[in-house]
Amino acid sequence: MHTTTIDLNCDMGEGFGPWKMGDDAALMPLISSANIACGYHAGDPVVMRDTVQLALAHRVAIGAHPGYPDLQGFGRRNLSMSADEVYAMVLYQIGALQAIIHAEGGVLHHVKPHGALYNAAAKQRELAEAIVKAVCKVQQTDLFLYGLSGSVLLKVAEAHGLWVCREAFCDRSYQNDGSLTPRNLPGAVIDNPEAAAKRALQLAKQQSIETIDQKLIAVPCDTICIHGDGGNAVAVARSVRELLEKEGLMVAAPTPPFPSTP
Amino acid sequence: MHTTTIDLNCDMGEGFGPWKMGDDAALMPLISSANIACGYHAGDPVVMRDTVQLALAHRVAIGAHPGYPDLQGFGRRNLSMSADEVYAMVLYQIGALQAIIHAEGGVLHHVKPHGALYNAAAKQRELAEAIVKAVCKVQQTDLFLYGLSGSVLLKVAEAHGLWVCREAFCDRSYQNDGSLTPRNLPGAVIDNPEAAAKRALQLAKQQSIETIDQKLIAVPCDTICIHGDGGNAVAVARSVRELLEKEGLMVAAPTPPFPSTP
Amino acid sequence: MHTTTIDLNCDMGEGFGPWKMGDDAALMPLISSANIACGYHAGDPVVMRDTVQLALAHRVAIGAHPGYPDLQGFGRRNLSMSADEVYAMVLYQIGALQAIIHAEGGVLHHVKPHGALYNAAAKQRELAEAIVKAVCKVQQTDLFLYGLSGSVLLKVAEAHGLWVCREAFCDRSYQNDGSLTPRNLPGAVIDNPEAAAKRALQLAKQQSIETIDQKLIAVPCDTICIHGDGGNAVAVARSVRELLEKEGLMVAAPTPPFPSTP
Amino acid sequence: MHTTTIDLNCDMGEGFGPWKMGDDAALMPLISSANIACGYHAGDPVVMRDTVQLALAHRVAIGAHPGYPDLQGFGRRNLSMSADEVYAMVLYQIGALQAIIHAEGGVLHHVKPHGALYNAAAKQRELAEAIVKAVCKVQQTDLFLYGLSGSVLLKVAEAHGLWVCREAFCDRSYQNDGSLTPRNLPGAVIDNPEAAAKRALQLAKQQSIETIDQKLIAVPCDTICIHGDGGNAVAVARSVRELLEKEGLMVAAPTPPFPSTP
Repeated sequence: MHTTTIDLNCDMGEGFGPWKMGDDAALMPLISSANIACGYHAGDPVVMRDTVQLALAHRVAIGAHPGYPDLQGFGRRNLSMSADEVYAMVLYQIGALQAIIHAEGGVLHHVKPHGALYNAAAKQRELAEAIVKAVCKVQQTDLFLYGLSGSVLLKVAEAHGLWVCREAFCDRSYQNDGSLTPRNLPGAVIDNPEAAAKRALQLAKQQSIETIDQKLIAVPCDTICIHGDGGNAVAVARSVRELLEKEGLMVAAPTPPFPSTP
Repeated sequence: MHTTTIDLNCDMGEGFGPWKMGDDAALMPLISSANIACGYHAGDPVVMRDTVQLALAHRVAIGAHPGYPDLQGFGRRNLSMSADEVYAMVLYQIGALQAIIHAEGGVLHHVKPHGALYNAAAKQRELAEAIVKAVCKVQQTDLFLYGLSGSVLLKVAEAHGLWVCREAFCDRSYQNDGSLTPRNLPGAVIDNPEAAAKRALQLAKQQSIETIDQKLIAVPCDTICIHGDGGNAVAVARSVRELLEKEGLMVAAPTPPFPSTP
Repeated sequence: MHTTTIDLNCDMGEGFGPWKMGDDAALMPLISSANIACGYHAGDPVVMRDTVQLALAHRVAIGAHPGYPDLQGFGRRNLSMSADEVYAMVLYQIGALQAIIHAEGGVLHHVKPHGALYNAAAKQRELAEAIVKAVCKVQQTDLFLYGLSGSVLLKVAEAHGLWVCREAFCDRSYQNDGSLTPRNLPGAVIDNPEAAAKRALQLAKQQSIETIDQKLIAVPCDTICIHGDGGNAVAVARSVRELLEKEGLMVAAPTPPFPSTP
Repeated sequence: MHTTTIDLNCDMGEGFGPWKMGDDAALMPLISSANIACGYHAGDPVVMRDTVQLALAHRVAIGAHPGYPDLQGFGRRNLSMSADEVYAMVLYQIGALQAIIHAEGGVLHHVKPHGALYNAAAKQRELAEAIVKAVCKVQQTDLFLYGLSGSVLLKVAEAHGLWVCREAFCDRSYQNDGSLTPRNLPGAVIDNPEAAAKRALQLAKQQSIETIDQKLIAVPCDTICIHGDGGNAVAVARSVRELLEKEGLMVAAPTPPFPSTP
């Protein structure tokens, strides 16, 4: 099938109290999906409300971005929570954001786990099932689960009938096995706007990417993530968006894959 | 009007992580409304889920019990949050609990602010309006706001068209002006089960109480609070429930005050 | 007495986890005293260690900057802690920083309460006594307490035999009664580098300042605070330092006011 | 060598804010070493101060009990902190407690890591070195490190010249490899007071124990831990203490292993 639409997503609302992170105001007009932190690894109720308003103003699809309860570690440190604890805390965080979205007249579009929880759920079935169970319990239809392309999380989600959105990264390099190059290795981050844009185009159009070892691998994807906390994030996002549109792609959040008519 | 029904409410789900507080399992069968902590002054997602299940098992009406973000002070210390901060955090906490209630097949019945937030909103119009605004934004009908009988919070709530439930206390003494005797004064707490039961009956039937100075004052009320963290809480609750029922009162959570038929 | 030496102090180490605040690296060479957050309103152990190292590298005197346990509100919201709670938490925070300072080969020079705790202790004797009691209990001599010039805190400290350092502000305007113009009023903040520098010079040399109503008031002071979180903080600090030195003043942290020889 | 003295240690001060854990008042007279939580996984400044006072009143040796910053998980969940983060946070926690101990006129006797940190440092050299480095940086002599008998932590500590105290458990069963039977397996916990006392005696006198598979293994030990949060903790502690003393052992905290005279 010929891909003509691609989603651009970005983690948003990652401030906390007096602390800022990323230039949400500059990034929001450039993306189609915003993953909003829910107060456990970042974000507080006021930041969440302000970020929801910003997303609505730019007609950007709003997602919940639940993470581990580890503010100091920004949810990037592994925490050996039980599946039951993960289930309950994901439900808690989605619910908190959902109430704020509804208060602003919006609707929750997707859920994307954050950081160490995202990585753990990509590989560990028990955590993946806990997250999927929580998302299924949210009383709402038309809800997407965003996750790493090829991950256990997405397999579990599909098995439970959830709509999934396969994620790829244009500002990170891949290894031959399809995993991302760890951040502490050279070449892990691609913060050159032109290079990131070319990679986004290849991911969107060809559904493939060249690894850090110059091997071409398939990366089926519906959404491309741009890291909002990088120093070059706004330039990368602008470059990606412009190239994608120049090459005829429509940047838009995913919509329900089939009509609900009988 | 002759009162034939009265609500008995209790703060519930006040554990956190490994720490317990109160004997929720013993209290739940004796009450008709449970106010469940939402993670800011007490409670965590697992405790919240377990408490919701316990309430549903006993057909007890479930309320959100939002408080200040002060775990160490149990939400009993004043915190000079702005009205905007209070609005957003009340919405956050209600939403978090609501998602957990829905996941368990229940429905949110009421909201009752906790501790220092409850007391502040009883007197300060700005805080009362922030809380009422948050409750009005929750996308649900048939929702009650519990507050101190005669408080600014209930006046504001009624002005915004919310259903209110006026609260009285059978295990605390009153002063002549209708306020509760501060906890640090002698005679503030009434933990004798028979004495508390008699006071509950008088509150329910006569809508009045004798103050600590032996003056009879009117206390219009729809619900009576029993403090679950008192050492004698279960005995008090049992004594209150038995006397009310023996005297012909029905113990039940408030229901919508008028039919929804056109 | 002719003033020839003045201290310049700045709140430092106010990041937390992944979040930064202020340009500590650029400010540190310009000041003589650093007040380092201790993990309750800002700062974490790694940030504290890094900030101590930075201060030592620039031979800047290191102070503990204890605040309320309110990360979200950055310690700027009033919290009705008891005097006993304040005593214990100030001791805790000083001890935590002191261990880190000692590990780096430095020595604790002073203590300055932060934000809402600073303001409360400037007026409330009970809180002032709790803080002074904690500072007196720290097993170390040669320790200064920094506080608002004319405050109850400094009076209590002197009564207990502590060395005090009277603080004035060059980037905030004063009211006729000697208090700072609240931040929400026009003219409260002076972020023009030249204006701030002139005010610092007047404070240091004349020990007086013109209020927002053009009245000259006395402000006896040993240290001048520059707010590190202002957008213009580095320019202000540089301008202040240059003018003070150009006018013949020595910028240095306070030293023990009398020899310990018999 | 004939053992005549053994230490009994217990984790103490594990309340937080309004929440209690364990019966510290009843346990303190029965033990010789108290490991006091430092505010990260349990404990707050007031609880710490009260527990220090209790320990001093019973002449019990006071240790710092640093843990992961995970209140909700009580420090029992693994958290992938870097060695640098662990170093700084252990220093922070020891310093905080040390200031409180000094304020009460006591002296820090030992450090024992808590929960998941204890277990991780028993096996991972990098974490063990981070903890040992922090303990070595505390400006104090006569300081013991408590750790699992045979652990990497104790090996690293000895290599750095620290005094170590080898810990064994009388209320937990051992596996043939010398590790504790995980809590989720049958027979892991021994809460019968007589059985625990017999095991304590065997550990103290024979420096050996029978495993859950009836094999006799050597467990060289200087201190025996009693878990204070078990329902039977006080009865176990009393039974252990009585049997040890009846059999001629002296229950006492370790003292410096050699005179400091030249």
